Amino acid sequence: MSRRFPFLHVDLPEWIDILCPSGAVYPDFTVRMNLVIELARRNVAAGTGGPFGAGVFDPASGEMVAAGVNLVVPGRAAILHAETIALALAGQVRGTFDLTGLELVSSVEPCAMCLGAVPWSGVSRLVCGARHEDACAIGFDEGDKPDEWQLSLANRGIEVVLDVRRTEAIAVLAAYVEAGGVVYNGRGREQ
Amino acid sequence: MSRRFPFLHVDLPEWIDILCPSGAVYPDFTVRMNLVIELARRNVAAGTGGPFGAGVFDPASGEMVAAGVNLVVPGRAAILHAETIALALAGQVRGTFDLTGLELVSSVEPCAMCLGAVPWSGVSRLVCGARHEDACAIGFDEGDKPDEWQLSLANRGIEVVLDVRRTEAIAVLAAYVEAGGVVYNGRGREQ
Repeated sequence: MSRRFPFLHVDLPEWIDILCPSGAVYPDFTVRMNLVIELARRNVAAGTGGPFGAGVFDPASGEMVAAGVNLVVPGRAAILHAETIALALAGQVRGTFDLTGLELVSSVEPCAMCLGAVPWSGVSRLVCGARHEDACAIGFDEGDKPDEWQLSLANRGIEVVLDVRRTEAIAVLAAYVEAGGVVYNGRGREQ
Repeated sequence: MSRRFPFLHVDLPEWIDILCPSGAVYPDFTVRMNLVIELARRNVAAGTGGPFGAGVFDPASGEMVAAGVNLVVPGRAAILHAETIALALAGQVRGTFDLTGLELVSSVEPCAMCLGAVPWSGVSRLVCGARHEDACAIGFDEGDKPDEWQLSLANRGIEVVLDVRRTEAIAVLAAYVEAGGVVYNGRGREQ
């Protein structure tokens, strides 16, 4: 363990445990989306981070393997998006980086970084709520993705489902702006 | 802090401290690339992870802010690439996600995920050693990036420098394969 450089330690906020009890079953991806949108909403309400929630689920059992919420500002790290956290924590639960057969559900279509993380993780399905343009509309710079990104995932055997509870997911983005949340971006371009 | 889900804790390997002493000055990006290639080489030699090294540097002082090496397999998380770790640790050092004015040096051109992380971090320059196709040539699935990714970064004010010590960076990739290193990918497609 390095003494020259700090470590990175990422913990989910305590309030998550109430929302995501052990053993709960979420039988389809619409129900799972309801949960991750609620994670995003609570993250804003509790002031613990940005308006994005995600979860890795086992579609066979309907159970949640790991949750994620945006922790960029409190965690002091640009990489701490809901999806990257959910994927990393699912790896800790499973004891391997390889999440083959699992499903990633995200309250907003993944940004360029999180989209790039999807094939590495091995998940078999990506389910999205709000769209890229909905996040951009409130000022986030989601980055440039390949034009054919859905085809790119499909070619890797990853199914993509869009617009699940999109309206509800957009409402969380709007609530964040109304609450005066920081729309951070690189280069200090806060708006 | 959640008790329902595990935390993520990322520490750099101990051997990094000898390679990257406090106060050392790396006056130009070629010298900085030599260091991150050495990080990649040692990561393979020590068996602590994949053949990729990165660093965040302050070009004004020439000092290294944070190092990163690939820790996907030991860290049990697909997101733990050299670049994401260096960016996250630099955030811990600086006390903010915003790394405006700093430089990211990577022994291999960033994969689709790490490329997506670059604008979020705010770094002003990206310096790359080996190319995308060099990593793909040994079996890594680097993901699909926008065709005009360099232009996309330039439009965000981020300078890109390619092929710095490319031959030396490729040699580390080759050494990893020769040593029988795991060329992991999502979906269990190890080769």
